[in-house]
Amino acid sequence: MKILVINCGSSSIKYQLFDMTDESVLATGLVEKIGTESAMIKHEVPGAEEKVLISEILDHRVGMKKVLDLLMDKEEGVIQSADEVAAVGHRVVHGGEFFSRSVVIDSQVRQAIRQTIDLAPLHNPPNLLGIDAAQAQLPHATHVAVFDTAFHQTMPDYAYMYALPRILYQKYKVRRYGFHGTSHKYVSQRAAEFLGKPLADLKIISCHIGNGASITAVQGGKSVDTSMGMTPLEGLMMGTRSGDIDPAIVPFVIAKEELTIGEVSSMMNKHSGLLGVSGISSDMREVTEAMFDGNSQAKLAIDMYIYKIKKVIGSYVAAMDGLDVLLFTAGVGENASLIRERVCEGLSFFGIEIDKEENAIRKKEERRISTPASKVEVLVIPTNEELMIARETKELV
Amino acid sequence: MKILVINCGSSSIKYQLFDMTDESVLATGLVEKIGTESAMIKHEVPGAEEKVLISEILDHRVGMKKVLDLLMDKEEGVIQSADEVAAVGHRVVHGGEFFSRSVVIDSQVRQAIRQTIDLAPLHNPPNLLGIDAAQAQLPHATHVAVFDTAFHQTMPDYAYMYALPRILYQKYKVRRYGFHGTSHKYVSQRAAEFLGKPLADLKIISCHIGNGASITAVQGGKSVDTSMGMTPLEGLMMGTRSGDIDPAIVPFVIAKEELTIGEVSSMMNKHSGLLGVSGISSDMREVTEAMFDGNSQAKLAIDMYIYKIKKVIGSYVAAMDGLDVLLFTAGVGENASLIRERVCEGLSFFGIEIDKEENAIRKKEERRISTPASKVEVLVIPTNEELMIARETKELV
Repeated sequence: MKILVINCGSSSIKYQLFDMTDESVLATGLVEKIGTESAMIKHEVPGAEEKVLISEILDHRVGMKKVLDLLMDKEEGVIQSADEVAAVGHRVVHGGEFFSRSVVIDSQVRQAIRQTIDLAPLHNPPNLLGIDAAQAQLPHATHVAVFDTAFHQTMPDYAYMYALPRILYQKYKVRRYGFHGTSHKYVSQRAAEFLGKPLADLKIISCHIGNGASITAVQGGKSVDTSMGMTPLEGLMMGTRSGDIDPAIVPFVIAKEELTIGEVSSMMNKHSGLLGVSGISSDMREVTEAMFDGNSQAKLAIDMYIYKIKKVIGSYVAAMDGLDVLLFTAGVGENASLIRERVCEGLSFFGIEIDKEENAIRKKEERRISTPASKVEVLVIPTNEELMIARETKELV
Repeated sequence: MKILVINCGSSSIKYQLFDMTDESVLATGLVEKIGTESAMIKHEVPGAEEKVLISEILDHRVGMKKVLDLLMDKEEGVIQSADEVAAVGHRVVHGGEFFSRSVVIDSQVRQAIRQTIDLAPLHNPPNLLGIDAAQAQLPHATHVAVFDTAFHQTMPDYAYMYALPRILYQKYKVRRYGFHGTSHKYVSQRAAEFLGKPLADLKIISCHIGNGASITAVQGGKSVDTSMGMTPLEGLMMGTRSGDIDPAIVPFVIAKEELTIGEVSSMMNKHSGLLGVSGISSDMREVTEAMFDGNSQAKLAIDMYIYKIKKVIGSYVAAMDGLDVLLFTAGVGENASLIRERVCEGLSFFGIEIDKEENAIRKKEERRISTPASKVEVLVIPTNEELMIARETKELV
């Protein structure tokens, strides 16, 4: 069974075609700058050279069509006809309170995704465009929505409610949702398999640390708390996002700097975090380099970044009253050994002890970086959201 | 040596006169509704009946004069002349980055307090009015400012900086300051004395849980982190304050409800917390009663309240990589045995084990509520900010 996984942004389509008989990847690619005359498609078939095409692509439908043309190309294609694609798994950012699992898309599901636009005005509309485009090109395939928020719907009310007037929840569904759910679910399952232990018995803290970053407390395979909130702004310090701040700072800054709502949101989402503090970059590699070059702002940014991760870990140890597995995933989590080392070195009270040499080695595989004596298993688990979406989709076909 | 301690609000003066030879209280009182024709003074001398006077008091100067008249009353007074008051300790809420300790008030200090008004527009102006009024009535006394923020000035930069664009710190000193410093300092010192251990050796988490509430990590006698931020809004869920929320909720709510900056601030500070969630009251006793009566919103409010305390405790265990003493103080912390029990019962992983029977007993004294087997000493320490202000003042005379 062949499954296409799709992740649409406002001007992009990211795609990956799986052969689910062995979960192998047949092709991956990215369409960018949709809506322009010079849109770009990067298409790659494992083992072959990457292809780059530039052409006019004015909407997602045209983009999807070009993707299918590439997949079915007579010479270099990986499928013969569109009918071979049994299902399409769509990444949808926000499922609100409607979806606690992946679902086959029908008109009710579409409507629920549309109703959730208020909570994710930047993400859900392009996700809907992607669904439209893919359904137009692949009308016979089963289309499945896989939500970033679904995994976190198991949180208890005392973890997801904010201490705001209740009317805000009743009128607008203001509450914590959490994101990166597909990733947290995937890596926590992988961690249990790696350790050969039942997921149901484990208290896991999953650190998905990329440009966006969130930490989830996974108890018995269920998300019981997560650091992102109603939006992906809350929680950790990220590449360009502030994470938690005193909420009183928002009206303070609006008043002082005479900002519009859009401007203050943009400030917190796009000009803060590593970028805002370091003044250098949102990229951990560049900030780390600057720190080693003696830049004190870069040092502060990294100190803050690490400290906040430690605090969230501590809060989830308290939430679960224990910890069996601490895992790192995503761009920074998988690659930045320095960040992992510094997060772990001050957590010996929790029984965390890492093997610094093992941690420093760079490799793209699931592995343990804790010492045999460590009471907590510390793992690096490369995430694979696309594969997880394909698996969830397959289950529903 | 007699020391008068003063805490001024916009329409109130709270006062307490100490005889510092034995730290005994000679008189306490409260002037309320200053600025009206029916201001009220409640004045109490230990051992005597409380006096209540109603009269026109149009400003803090007149209020201060009436207080001194009561203190020097020929029949019921506790001092003969104003000259007996050697010093006045003024509680000042916000010392910004200017003050890391208490100081004798001179024109420079006044100016610095004035410069900090931006950060505490509701508190510092009445504190300045109180200083003026007391200096006018007691020109020969030494006047000392004791700041709520000073104790927290030992926080490292990575704990006090927000991950916002650096310009906000440079222009407006946007950073974490923390409050309740006088209380956290007092109770952590008392805890060390109670245990007969040097404060320098202890990792303490001090939970000041009243209508306003904050938790401080005190390592070696120094504040290394605290849950309130630039303002007292951040951190825990409180009587009427939301504490931490996704900062993106602020612009969201402003837009949806068409609120002004003042209105959204008021919502988060005055209509949230226990009150906002329970819909019943900001008073823990009333919310607890409603919970026992089966009110599900009251139950949720208390579940959230406790859960957030646990999470902050966990984050500070991580921050200090350990914990020796967990202490509770202030209104809820000293009196609500249920809250203490429920906070502690899920923290056994940290080595916290309380004696439920001992915890349930109500008494107004410093005491241990942990079991002999508990690895963490859990204490209840009644706070006494007035005495601490008097002590700090005495040291500077």
